[in-house]
Amino acid sequence: MQLNSRSFRLGELAAALGLTLRGDSDRTVRNVATLGRAGSDDAAFLANPAYKRALDYTQAGVVVMTPQAADDFTGNVLLSDNPYRDWARLIKLLRPQPAGSPGIHPSAVIAADADIHSSAHIGAQTVIGSRVRIGKAAVVGPGCVVDDDVQIGEASRLVGKVWIGGQAVLGQRVLVHPGVVIGADGFGLAMSEGRWHKVPQVGGVRIGDDCEIGANTTIDRGAIEDTVLEQDVRIDNQVQIAHNVHVGAHTAIAGCVGIAGSTRIGRYCMIAGASGVAGHLTICDSVIITAMSTVLDSIDQPGEYGSGIPARPHGRWKRLLVRLSQLDDWARRLRRLEKNQ
Amino acid sequence: MQLNSRSFRLGELAAALGLTLRGDSDRTVRNVATLGRAGSDDAAFLANPAYKRALDYTQAGVVVMTPQAADDFTGNVLLSDNPYRDWARLIKLLRPQPAGSPGIHPSAVIAADADIHSSAHIGAQTVIGSRVRIGKAAVVGPGCVVDDDVQIGEASRLVGKVWIGGQAVLGQRVLVHPGVVIGADGFGLAMSEGRWHKVPQVGGVRIGDDCEIGANTTIDRGAIEDTVLEQDVRIDNQVQIAHNVHVGAHTAIAGCVGIAGSTRIGRYCMIAGASGVAGHLTICDSVIITAMSTVLDSIDQPGEYGSGIPARPHGRWKRLLVRLSQLDDWARRLRRLEKNQ
Amino acid sequence: MQLNSRSFRLGELAAALGLTLRGDSDRTVRNVATLGRAGSDDAAFLANPAYKRALDYTQAGVVVMTPQAADDFTGNVLLSDNPYRDWARLIKLLRPQPAGSPGIHPSAVIAADADIHSSAHIGAQTVIGSRVRIGKAAVVGPGCVVDDDVQIGEASRLVGKVWIGGQAVLGQRVLVHPGVVIGADGFGLAMSEGRWHKVPQVGGVRIGDDCEIGANTTIDRGAIEDTVLEQDVRIDNQVQIAHNVHVGAHTAIAGCVGIAGSTRIGRYCMIAGASGVAGHLTICDSVIITAMSTVLDSIDQPGEYGSGIPARPHGRWKRLLVRLSQLDDWARRLRRLEKNQ
Repeated sequence: MQLNSRSFRLGELAAALGLTLRGDSDRTVRNVATLGRAGSDDAAFLANPAYKRALDYTQAGVVVMTPQAADDFTGNVLLSDNPYRDWARLIKLLRPQPAGSPGIHPSAVIAADADIHSSAHIGAQTVIGSRVRIGKAAVVGPGCVVDDDVQIGEASRLVGKVWIGGQAVLGQRVLVHPGVVIGADGFGLAMSEGRWHKVPQVGGVRIGDDCEIGANTTIDRGAIEDTVLEQDVRIDNQVQIAHNVHVGAHTAIAGCVGIAGSTRIGRYCMIAGASGVAGHLTICDSVIITAMSTVLDSIDQPGEYGSGIPARPHGRWKRLLVRLSQLDDWARRLRRLEKNQ
Repeated sequence: MQLNSRSFRLGELAAALGLTLRGDSDRTVRNVATLGRAGSDDAAFLANPAYKRALDYTQAGVVVMTPQAADDFTGNVLLSDNPYRDWARLIKLLRPQPAGSPGIHPSAVIAADADIHSSAHIGAQTVIGSRVRIGKAAVVGPGCVVDDDVQIGEASRLVGKVWIGGQAVLGQRVLVHPGVVIGADGFGLAMSEGRWHKVPQVGGVRIGDDCEIGANTTIDRGAIEDTVLEQDVRIDNQVQIAHNVHVGAHTAIAGCVGIAGSTRIGRYCMIAGASGVAGHLTICDSVIITAMSTVLDSIDQPGEYGSGIPARPHGRWKRLLVRLSQLDDWARRLRRLEKNQ
Repeated sequence: MQLNSRSFRLGELAAALGLTLRGDSDRTVRNVATLGRAGSDDAAFLANPAYKRALDYTQAGVVVMTPQAADDFTGNVLLSDNPYRDWARLIKLLRPQPAGSPGIHPSAVIAADADIHSSAHIGAQTVIGSRVRIGKAAVVGPGCVVDDDVQIGEASRLVGKVWIGGQAVLGQRVLVHPGVVIGADGFGLAMSEGRWHKVPQVGGVRIGDDCEIGANTTIDRGAIEDTVLEQDVRIDNQVQIAHNVHVGAHTAIAGCVGIAGSTRIGRYCMIAGASGVAGHLTICDSVIITAMSTVLDSIDQPGEYGSGIPARPHGRWKRLLVRLSQLDDWARRLRRLEKNQ
């Protein structure tokens, strides 16, 4: 874990981050760690007050936290009003992501009419199709397939083993993790004479600036119009975004979520893990869906929604299922009791 | 979106589709669009009466719809008794899928004893194993791995980045989207002396003609006998089909569904998104499973089944969960009231 | 299915497996089959008493089963106290997995400073990054990407099209199926000034000896510390393991399960298909989670837990949903009845 790490004196670090240091500005840190494991040359952070007890025994060279949290702490502190964000900024300084070196790996296969910026990096075994455009400082990692007519904006990064087609257009600084498939056909079928007929999918995909797409997530191309992610949409692993879904800016979608076709999700929504959203719905801005919920109706009021049932010991759960089957009977018994009163 | 589109006079288009044109047979269309966005040289369609209002303002050069829907419409119409199917046929004319050019990309790695039809296309960076057979006009796109002994039938197409092994046999016109894995080992484990022992998976996979497999879907090889998809099975993205599952012809399975081992699904079934079907069940023909349902028992009557719970506002859902925990208590109270009557 | 199969006389087979043969030691078997389809040169097995009826008509050359099950059976039997485990051992004899031939395929791209054991196999089109270490007799199949600083232990096997990064360290005999992504970034985001800031993920992944990872499963690298699978963890297809999850030894996780960040799962647990486990929980040893359950709380007692609701016919399910909405009203009516008693 010493790889690619840089060392900073705490004074330098505070200056680079624009934060106030309380403590020894000459102390040097070289790496990051949790409060529990940090040594004297590691930086650590405290964002969740539930972990405050760890301050009693941490050996960290410096801790990023709020002034309130730091009150009784005698070690070195970088004071922050948003410790988790400033922790993110600190890691970027101490553990900088190696930039892709400009150039095309000799094993890559590039269409003659692809337009690849001279500062872009194309990795080993990657295939770039016709009329593809790859922007300034973009990185297409090893083992990717970028199909014809796709556009990848400045400083975007396909980590590796990504497939992009469907005439997808990615904005700037889009980060796409391995195994992602963007722009495959949506599920369009017409039944006639006892068999399915495929409805060709000819829409595209548009992905805004600063989006992040987690490993093995799939985002289908539109049927006729485009599937759209506005800017700063953050999607975790194994999420399925069907054709013509529209996701508003700054929305975050956790792992294993499925969103069915033509649904419109607002801005600043958060959809927790393994939830499903049915097709052709409209979810307004600032909606939170809790884990493993089934969204079957449009939502027009911000707030939290859910239908996930917490697991119980098997015996109790079995009995509850029996009770559920009795509810019809209970309805009758309740009415009878009321009549006979 | 002008790519690969052809232009047709409406008279030609009607003739090619075998439909009746009501309107100007000399008008030319070049592309497809939704009713809302179509211009005068676009074809559009109306299949769902809910969208009929869009006819009032559409600028489409022609609309595919039923005679009833077209009643008050003054624009050009292609009359159809199944507009969605005929729309599919129209797109195929206006936006033909480019055929794979025959031949093997020089970067592909092909086993010496693979049997590849001279009209087949093998894409860049693809790997073809020993004794593989690739049929007439089949396409194996870029970045695929086709393991030893796999057979791919005439006019089938692996779009790209597909892995196929497990001695899978694909029929004709099978369409496989990126990230699909067909023929990996199923989950076979025996516990003995406190640890797991892998049960080697030696069955195959058979996929019938005209099946379509969505992006990042997985279909395991059988344990001993084969995993089977009959003809015209349509599977969406991120579906998991376990070992020895048998799916009947013309069944459609939406995104994120999981089907556990040895379950048999009938013909003409429809399984909606994110549902799960337990192992060793038999589901008869013509069963519809609604979204996010849990199928734990065999089904022997056609019809619709489900157990998905629609999400509610958080406060109401929390209260409902409390009510559920009270049901045991309520049962007692109901009985007491009835006794005391 | 004759591929790679060996023939054995039953006497040899019994000796090789250390089992007692009842029957003709000179009979030869060449392959494996189910009881229903086996011919006279096939071995079959009976582990589940529910299938015992098949013994009446099986043509199998030999059947692996318990002495009790074999009581009335007149054919050849290999007597076993754990037929499923011994069946696994038998298949390994009759259908040996071809070993990877040592060597590096000429189309693979290998970093100059990668350390690959001379007995390891590197497949076609595979990419191996800087400082990667590949152990003795390990196999990295075709189309894999192994990113910088990854270590793969002795006799481990990446079947093909696997992506591994995040400085993952795999133990010995780890089996990784196609489409798996190990070591991609976890979902770490800080909100500030109305937009998301990525929290760089710098932890690793450690995977113990004898683990198996199913197709298209994703295992994220840790945020700061590592994501960990202890030894002999068995994971099915399309499972999502988020950053800093810790899975205890001998735990099995079925298809489509999602485990959110920082959750700790005990040893000898079994999590059935499509269940979800929320983040930051602790699940003790020997817990069974039934299919499609939602685990929202830590569990400190071994045993079975669940919340999956079995699907019902649509009409009955719709009525039950109505009943659920009435529970608040019922609570009031029950109280009123009790008061008026």
